[in-house]
Parts: sequence; C-alpha cells; structure tokens
Amino acid sequence: MWQEIISPRFSDTDALGHINNTVFAVWFEGARQDVFKIFTPELNLRQWPLIIASVKLDYHAQTHYGADVEIRTYISRIGGSSFDVYQEAWQHGVKTVSGTAVLVQFDYAANKAVAISAEQKQQLNQHQYKA
Amino acid sequence: MWQEIISPRFSDTDALGHINNTVFAVWFEGARQDVFKIFTPELNLRQWPLIIASVKLDYHAQTHYGADVEIRTYISRIGGSSFDVYQEAWQHGVKTVSGTAVLVQFDYAANKAVAISAEQKQQLNQHQYKA
Amino acid sequence: MWQEIISPRFSDTDALGHINNTVFAVWFEGARQDVFKIFTPELNLRQWPLIIASVKLDYHAQTHYGADVEIRTYISRIGGSSFDVYQEAWQHGVKTVSGTAVLVQFDYAANKAVAISAEQKQQLNQHQYKA
Amino acid sequence: MWQEIISPRFSDTDALGHINNTVFAVWFEGARQDVFKIFTPELNLRQWPLIIASVKLDYHAQTHYGADVEIRTYISRIGGSSFDVYQEAWQHGVKTVSGTAVLVQFDYAANKAVAISAEQKQQLNQHQYKA
Repeated sequence: MWQEIISPRFSDTDALGHINNTVFAVWFEGARQDVFKIFTPELNLRQWPLIIASVKLDYHAQTHYGADVEIRTYISRIGGSSFDVYQEAWQHGVKTVSGTAVLVQFDYAANKAVAISAEQKQQLNQHQYKA
Repeated sequence: MWQEIISPRFSDTDALGHINNTVFAVWFEGARQDVFKIFTPELNLRQWPLIIASVKLDYHAQTHYGADVEIRTYISRIGGSSFDVYQEAWQHGVKTVSGTAVLVQFDYAANKAVAISAEQKQQLNQHQYKA
Repeated sequence: MWQEIISPRFSDTDALGHINNTVFAVWFEGARQDVFKIFTPELNLRQWPLIIASVKLDYHAQTHYGADVEIRTYISRIGGSSFDVYQEAWQHGVKTVSGTAVLVQFDYAANKAVAISAEQKQQLNQHQYKA
Repeated sequence: MWQEIISPRFSDTDALGHINNTVFAVWFEGARQDVFKIFTPELNLRQWPLIIASVKLDYHAQTHYGADVEIRTYISRIGGSSFDVYQEAWQHGVKTVSGTAVLVQFDYAANKAVAISAEQKQQLNQHQYKA
C-alpha cells in the first residue's frame, strides 16, 4: 500500500459544503504517482508509458473540509499489459470514497499496448490489495 | 438526450498534450445540470435534492485541445430513488469518453433517500438511452 | 471585444455557495483562446508562441451558480513583445470580476521573447479596450 | 512565514509540459489555510469570516512536474479590515511564482467589512514579510 495525506483545499469544496465528487478523480490520480514511477522512475513526460482505460469512483460518505484525508493506493489486478489500481479515501476513520483505475502500459509513438515485464510485476505485487 | 458543446480550455490539457482524464468528471457533472433541474428547477443550493453514489468513466480515444467536444447526456436506468445518467463525449465524429453516474434523490437534512415521483420519472424518461 | 458565455458548473462553486475565486483564472484563460489564435491560428501546442508573465484578478461582487456569465476580453496594452489582456465577468448586469493578464510572445526553444509584428498589432488593435 | 510542501499532480500540468498558470491560484489559496485559522480557528464554513478582494500572480520561471514545490506564505500589509497575503512558490532553489492576495474580514450576513482586532493583528504580525 502507498499512503498519501491530503489537506483539502477550500477550492475543493462545493456549494454543499463538502468536497466535490470530481476532486477525488484528481486526488486519486495524484496518489498514483508512485505507480507511475514503476514504469518511468524519472516521471519522464516525453516518453510517458501509461494510458488510462477507465476509472470508477464509489462515494460512501461525505468528505469534509478542515480535516486531513488519507489516500490508500493498492494494486488489485495485474494482466498482460493492463492492471488495476484500487484506492480509498479515509477521513476521521471512515472510508468515504473508493475507486479503481484501469491503466495500460502504452507506447504512444507506436500507439499500442506494451506487456508488463516480470520486474514490473514484482514491484506491483509488493502493493497488492488483499480484500 | 441533452446536448452541450464544450470548447476545451488550455488548462484542461496535461503534459501529454491531450485533455486530462480527470477533466471528464468535471465536464460530465457540468452537463448533468439539466438533470438537476428535474429535481430542483431553480437549482436551489440550499435544498439540494441529489447525491452521487458512483461515477464510471471509460476512455476510448484521446480528446484534443483546439476542437469542440459534444457531450451527450441520457438517462439509462430509473430505480426507486436512484437513477443512472449515461454520458458520452464526442470529438471529430469519434466517441472519446463515455460514462455512467449513479445519482440518488436525497434529503440531506433527514439524511435519507427519497423516492422518485411519477412526474420525475416521466421527465427522466424523455431522455432515455436506447443502446 | 471577444465575448464568451459560460454556464457555471456545480464544481465551480465552493462552500460559500458562490463561484470560487480561483475559477476565474481558469475561465479567463479559456476566454483568451481567440487571443492565442492571433499568434498560432491552429493552436499548435508543439510550437506554442506565448508565455504568461502575470495575472491580476479583482473581485467586485459574488458570482453565483445557476445563471450565465459573460466574459468580455479586450487588449489594453501592446508593447514590444508583451501585451495586456483585460477581461471582465458579468452576471445579471453586474461586473463581478475583472482582471489583466500580461502575455509575452515567446520562443520556448530559444528561451527568449519575440517582437510583436505589425500584422499581429493590427489584429490585437481591433479588440482594444477603451475605458 | 508559513510553509507548505506540494508534490505537483499530473493533472496540474498542461500541454506545455509544465504546471499550468491557473494552478498557482489554487495552490496559494490552499496555503492560506493557516491565515484563515486566525479568523476562524475551526474553519467554520457556516460563518466564514473572509472575502477575497484581489489576487495578483507573477510568473518568474516555469514550474515542473516531478519535484516538490515549497509554498511560503507571509503577511505583507495589515489595514483596518483588509490585509495582504504575500506568497512565493519555490522549486529547485528557484522562486518560480510570487503573488499577493488582498483579503477582507467580512460579515456575509450583514454584507459589510469587519475591523481586524488587536489580537488578530498580533497573530498576523508573527508572519510579517520582510523584503
């Protein structure tokens, strides 16, 4: 598991007085940075090796301004060239949001998927989600 | 179907030179405004009648800066108090992103779901998705 | 003057129930697209010809969700390689926000400013702000 | 001086491969949270005591993805009911962006400015900017 602590910003709130639902797409992508580093240790933007296939977010409870949020990031599936990143947001001991992003190792120049190597699998496996 | 035309903003792009994946959560929520009006015609923020249960986004192709994007919004399921909003983003004749948001009619003060009325169902049905 | 009509999105609001102040930086940059086209008619991201030197935003009144906002964009100064873009946001007949962005024609590869040509000046002058 | 360390998110970048200029409005507002606490220690959204009058951002150098950014926050002026927050973003030992936000202690219900108290001044003074 990777862990990131976020202090919600005022601009993350919406008129309902809680954190807007779209913000979790941003927070979760931010928290996938350590996953990115397995595929590009220098975070090389000129040869970015990943593309996103889908993202799912489930909202379990409201998340509020004024208290830290912990983002937990796991690997929940490893396929041939794609894999799933499962993430949770926790605040005050409550899991408020969870979600899964499907990422694909991708060669933008060749416009095709690239197989996940044994070494990459091993690194991903160290953060495996156990339900 | 509801339809909205969006001119992507420079700040919607990311370092890969395309529209960032998190932007579609924002665009799609924006395009659900006509759905909101079925439940609160005046968009009354003090008595907001909806809560989001989940959102799923599928990325089919890259979306680019410099060309309009059409957002199509449909109702794809109507339940007792919840319903599904199915949406698509189209650019240059290509469906680049699709997604489904599950919304629930909700009484924030009472903290409980509220049944969708016959009249609301009728209005939602006018925008039904036919696959 | 260039003109853009914006329908505020729910995610543009904050916990005070109005449009968050940071959103105007985004809206105003979006509304500068026609200015960008004077310098790169095809909005060519690979040879982007402008850099931003500063931005100032003045908040005169609250801007609300549920009503269109008109963004007016003018050129208020033309220098050797830099120029000022003056912008206003109007809602319900009230100027709620105004601001000025200083842009510089810039060669990113050479890392230096580029003089504004006579033809560019003529195009910019067509949108001159008269106080 | 208040200090915050930010790890830029992928969605903070734009097509130029650097952090988009509008992001600093968001980062700087986020870093003003400790200023907010002087006026509302519990960050009480129902009785928010501040309104923003203006914000100015000066861009000195590009800010990049993949390296931490330090935000430094100071008080640079204290008036009757308004005050200035001066902020800087630093990356790799370079001041990349600086800016000033003018905030006003404000009673939203009464719709009028509120004088800064002696105790508030004392707390603000502890973070005074010395050029």
